[in-house]
Amino acid sequence: MSENFTPPENSVGFVQPQTLHVDTPLEMACGVTLPQYDLVYETYGTLNADKSNAILICHALSGSHHVAGYYEGEKNPGWWEGYVGPGKPIDTNEFFVVCSNNLGGCHGSTGPASINSETGRYYGPDFPIVTIPDWVNSQNTLREHLGIDRWAAVIGGSMGGMQALQWSIQYPDKLAHAGVIAAAPKLSAQNIAFNEVARRAIMTDPEFHNGRYLEMGTVPKRGLALARMLGHLTYLSDDVMGEKFGRELREGELKYHFDVEFQVESYLRYQGEKFATKLKFDANTYLLMTKALDYFDPAADFDHDLTKAMAQAQAEFWIASFTTDWRFSPERSREIVKALLDNDAAVSYAEIESQHGHDAFLLPNAHYEGAFRAYMDRVKTTAKSVNQGENR
Amino acid sequence: MSENFTPPENSVGFVQPQTLHVDTPLEMACGVTLPQYDLVYETYGTLNADKSNAILICHALSGSHHVAGYYEGEKNPGWWEGYVGPGKPIDTNEFFVVCSNNLGGCHGSTGPASINSETGRYYGPDFPIVTIPDWVNSQNTLREHLGIDRWAAVIGGSMGGMQALQWSIQYPDKLAHAGVIAAAPKLSAQNIAFNEVARRAIMTDPEFHNGRYLEMGTVPKRGLALARMLGHLTYLSDDVMGEKFGRELREGELKYHFDVEFQVESYLRYQGEKFATKLKFDANTYLLMTKALDYFDPAADFDHDLTKAMAQAQAEFWIASFTTDWRFSPERSREIVKALLDNDAAVSYAEIESQHGHDAFLLPNAHYEGAFRAYMDRVKTTAKSVNQGENR
Repeated sequence: MSENFTPPENSVGFVQPQTLHVDTPLEMACGVTLPQYDLVYETYGTLNADKSNAILICHALSGSHHVAGYYEGEKNPGWWEGYVGPGKPIDTNEFFVVCSNNLGGCHGSTGPASINSETGRYYGPDFPIVTIPDWVNSQNTLREHLGIDRWAAVIGGSMGGMQALQWSIQYPDKLAHAGVIAAAPKLSAQNIAFNEVARRAIMTDPEFHNGRYLEMGTVPKRGLALARMLGHLTYLSDDVMGEKFGRELREGELKYHFDVEFQVESYLRYQGEKFATKLKFDANTYLLMTKALDYFDPAADFDHDLTKAMAQAQAEFWIASFTTDWRFSPERSREIVKALLDNDAAVSYAEIESQHGHDAFLLPNAHYEGAFRAYMDRVKTTAKSVNQGENR
Repeated sequence: MSENFTPPENSVGFVQPQTLHVDTPLEMACGVTLPQYDLVYETYGTLNADKSNAILICHALSGSHHVAGYYEGEKNPGWWEGYVGPGKPIDTNEFFVVCSNNLGGCHGSTGPASINSETGRYYGPDFPIVTIPDWVNSQNTLREHLGIDRWAAVIGGSMGGMQALQWSIQYPDKLAHAGVIAAAPKLSAQNIAFNEVARRAIMTDPEFHNGRYLEMGTVPKRGLALARMLGHLTYLSDDVMGEKFGRELREGELKYHFDVEFQVESYLRYQGEKFATKLKFDANTYLLMTKALDYFDPAADFDHDLTKAMAQAQAEFWIASFTTDWRFSPERSREIVKALLDNDAAVSYAEIESQHGHDAFLLPNAHYEGAFRAYMDRVKTTAKSVNQGENR
């Protein structure tokens, strides 16, 4: 890449991650206590004097703390560049934006590919099963470290939306708003089934070595690529696949062989390969993230009654879903909306027309952007009224 | 199994397959000519004097010629036992029912696990890519062998329905009726994508050995099990998975491990294992069947216009779909109905309420059975009027 690369003006520009080393032990839902861990995170924008303008963004399965901006020497921006930056819906001229890599991740926070200081070996399969409530606890430690009393908002899409939802139940007075986008209050049996096929693909790869592949100097690339192909299938709608690929042939005519015939095959193979080989996503992390999704069920502690679970919440909510999302369909978002309305909670709901399936939460869409901006204007007001209140 | 096992009265009882050895070379769509091959088939009921009561049933991806009845020493009946037998919708007191294992299959017809007489080796990956028109040609040879001028009906579900559809275009005067159940006039990009993930699972299994696993004394069990798990996912509706498994835990409480936590995981693993290990389905056959599905596109030869393609057809049609089938949704069946109506063809269409997804075509359902019986009554009339016509 050229040394002269300049990020566009509406970007947060060049960014660098920071690391918080946490010495406070984390008691995890699985029963394990993690004595210490690192959280890698990024921030954009400026924290105001009374620290009332901080937004926590939570990332999805394959995401990271690198939400926006560019790393020196890389051409691709963060995963939510379209929605986070100066003048964008999450406006870094107004807000101080924070995102940390989830514990158990593979982008710098302590995870299976980290060295366990107690053993001197990679954690690998010994890394404890991590849940969404555990992530919220670790993010809460980051909040304390940053000296923020209350997030102006916690926002995320997909698994990130589940974290925002969990925040509202677990630390109800520590966030003013919760933005829950393309999420669900728990996985369906079908959702779990897809995760299970992905996990079996990884775990039955002979190079998985019961999760100790790093010690063996191998990577379960085939399994990881399959898992990613399957993931992509569930992120895209049938409509957009039809529009994007249809039955288009890669070589213009049928060849009658097992190599790629149709463009869609080529696309999926490429996505799988890239994930496993170029992005080098850690297979154990993939397993952990899918398990965290499976286990997410905030209503479980409240007699399996989501309305009771949401009774804890104090935040104002924005729930958004996308019409062709069949991974977490609008019906699933409406379950959350209903539970909030049952509690007379403040909630606005946007069901956004999109052909892009689950991926829509990452993609440009005028209606989505409009609804997102309207919601963030509300968040701004809250942040300012907090300011005024404290400055009075 | 007890030696005293007696098949139920409404079953065709104990059955045995037969083999037709075909010496007439088969020119296949892929360009290869197969000099000779075996077709294994079963028949139930009695062919009437003028041979006007013969029904050809076509099987789906993992099906076989064993449609109904029992093999000596086995407790499980054929795959369509619920719908084929004395007094059942396809009434073997009235009809002579024929079903052959598709060429390229692994239940006795010549396929990748057969010995290629020209080389003395397993065909394995050398078995030519086989298409639905090729199957119809081979089934037509069986028709000639049985001395049947015209099938009273050709009927099938899923990939079997596609064969029935293809019959009506390819040999329009050789069938009086076509029953096309839970099918589609071609695969969508998403359908192809699912097939491609399944194929990659098999082909990237180190024990696949480029398809020569039989010679190597191995089986790509892991890949085949993954492919089957994924298949099952697409055969079941989200609804029925929810009802069948919900988020039920196998051991009653969360264990926080990578073994089975939820019942749905256990179910899928079992289905995958059974297919690969107990049923010993041949991996190369699985690949061929998915390719035949991908390639199916009868409109392609008619300017990609299904209406033009269906203009060839002379049969009377029964098209049936199931409300929760998301593999081949009702919309896909309606495409066929529309193309037939555009041609003023005789068609009746049943969109059947079912929670069972694609699998519904195999399962008990009063509405489905009623519609099926009504259709078969029409087939009977046709068969009889042919009788009367020829006997006059």
